[in-house]
Amino acid sequence: MAIITIVGSGMMGSAIGIPASENGHEVRLVGTPLDREIIEHARETGWHMNMRRKLPESYKYYQFEELSKALEGADAVVSGVSSFGVDWFLQSVLPILPEDLPVLAVTKGMIEENGRLIPYPLYYKRQLGSLRRNLNAVGGPCTSYELADRDQTYVAFCGEDAGTLKFLKSLFETDYYHISLSTDIIGVECAVAMKNAYALAVTLAVGMAEKRDGKLHYNSQAALFAQSVREMRRLLKLVGGGDDNIVFGAGDLYVTVFGGRTRLIGTLLGRGMSFDEAMRELEGVTLESIVIATRTAKAVRALIARGEASADDYPLLLHVDDIIEKGKSVNIPWNKFELEAL
Amino acid sequence: MAIITIVGSGMMGSAIGIPASENGHEVRLVGTPLDREIIEHARETGWHMNMRRKLPESYKYYQFEELSKALEGADAVVSGVSSFGVDWFLQSVLPILPEDLPVLAVTKGMIEENGRLIPYPLYYKRQLGSLRRNLNAVGGPCTSYELADRDQTYVAFCGEDAGTLKFLKSLFETDYYHISLSTDIIGVECAVAMKNAYALAVTLAVGMAEKRDGKLHYNSQAALFAQSVREMRRLLKLVGGGDDNIVFGAGDLYVTVFGGRTRLIGTLLGRGMSFDEAMRELEGVTLESIVIATRTAKAVRALIARGEASADDYPLLLHVDDIIEKGKSVNIPWNKFELEAL
Repeated sequence: MAIITIVGSGMMGSAIGIPASENGHEVRLVGTPLDREIIEHARETGWHMNMRRKLPESYKYYQFEELSKALEGADAVVSGVSSFGVDWFLQSVLPILPEDLPVLAVTKGMIEENGRLIPYPLYYKRQLGSLRRNLNAVGGPCTSYELADRDQTYVAFCGEDAGTLKFLKSLFETDYYHISLSTDIIGVECAVAMKNAYALAVTLAVGMAEKRDGKLHYNSQAALFAQSVREMRRLLKLVGGGDDNIVFGAGDLYVTVFGGRTRLIGTLLGRGMSFDEAMRELEGVTLESIVIATRTAKAVRALIARGEASADDYPLLLHVDDIIEKGKSVNIPWNKFELEAL
Repeated sequence: MAIITIVGSGMMGSAIGIPASENGHEVRLVGTPLDREIIEHARETGWHMNMRRKLPESYKYYQFEELSKALEGADAVVSGVSSFGVDWFLQSVLPILPEDLPVLAVTKGMIEENGRLIPYPLYYKRQLGSLRRNLNAVGGPCTSYELADRDQTYVAFCGEDAGTLKFLKSLFETDYYHISLSTDIIGVECAVAMKNAYALAVTLAVGMAEKRDGKLHYNSQAALFAQSVREMRRLLKLVGGGDDNIVFGAGDLYVTVFGGRTRLIGTLLGRGMSFDEAMRELEGVTLESIVIATRTAKAVRALIARGEASADDYPLLLHVDDIIEKGKSVNIPWNKFELEAL
């Protein structure tokens, strides 16, 4: 039996412990200072108040000030924070962890810096300077509540060390949680981070169709999905990630179009709301995806400015960015999707 | 104004004339001997009885014995038959067409022959022997009724001659029907034909989830979608099609999962029915996709037998084929999706 300490009791952090606990491991769920109520509630009721799912009976709960107790004897640590908690985790948690303790981050996303997209594990590593930590991350299509429902799920764990990855897989793999392993951190993380901008793009078609005749249409969603896959493949190449990671990108795009909060905003924009109107409508919803989407676009714009990428290759990404950043109306650049391979 | 003669008044044949007619071209819809009732009904009412959509007022209708009249002065011919009509079209229509008249086939699929997958345009060409015909085809995500509803749609026209492709595009392109052009016939056609087996595969998850808790789940659909994209990329490479065509394959897979009849049978199989039981349940539904799926699998099995492909690369396709051909129960080979890129 191993001990797994999860720091951050948001939905994904809380859900990923489920397969591990069913494998007989001890799972300790530690709230961040923002998670106080979730932990209190779960301690009393065994229920995750945001995910609205029962957590395993064997889970142990800790408030953040009990972190050091929760880390005693831990064999692995999960970072369960969202993109908004990445710097907090970097400053408040990573430095106090033992050097070789494997860390698995559920946070999907990238930092943008002068036109470079840096996956979180590499960002952490750089910010830690001389502090050595064993950093790994999860990518691939997985919504937390469906994992909690034991839906069949297929993800990738990525990191630098093959042995660590195999160890992590042994802790988490069950007959419903399936794990590929990859040392291509840039490939896996960029593929799945890119889905944020493109899930917004695909769901524009949901709102456009609703506005027109109140029905769901799939031709237009599929058209935007196809163009998204095309641009994601180009982006993967641009950042130097392996081509096969489009598999995780396309899968994550699929699940985000249907199971994620991004669909809400894409639909409102597609119906004709401006970005500001849509954000007012969705008051209270945390849209991590918007932050990652604009970072992705910012990186691509910087590369275009430097002549290292062509605007013609990313018409959909740039349109999504125009909608978010410049308040533009939805006006899909269909003609720019038309290629002549003659 | 050009004259476009569509032979085969099934749903897609009938729908693809709509953008052309809105471009001011004369569209003549010719029924096959099996379409007699559709043509009679449309002539009287302007309504397509199977698609349940109004056809453009300007459409002209012909029974098959009026074909030669319908071909008078035609600038392009559309083959609107399904896979089951391919040989009929080859024998009864292609030989009587003028040599240089461009033909655009809406039929998606391939012929399997000794482990080779041959797209219809190339199959036609070979069967015609010394008869020269200008053969082109449509691929990409498009359901007929949504095209008839003027949903935004993105497809690819493929063929050997760039000039012909540009001419065909000029006839059909509108502000809702967007067309890429490609001379990579094998790439485009194989990418979109492969969606048949994989749409069945993805929709198994719909039935599996329904059986378990009556709900829709997307993690499992996305997992199968991801593996489908992976295997489709491998198949594309195997047949020598260009890598970028995965864009049309993924888009067509997406639209077929949601908008096609294949979803019906995948869902029944996922709920636990045998293939025979599912086919009895769906009596009367023509499942072209099943035929194409088994052809695809047959080709891959032949290549595996010859040592030119590995069974490890196509676990999902082979499982789908086992379900169809051997009556096996659904038992997704999840472990075979797990890769170690270390």
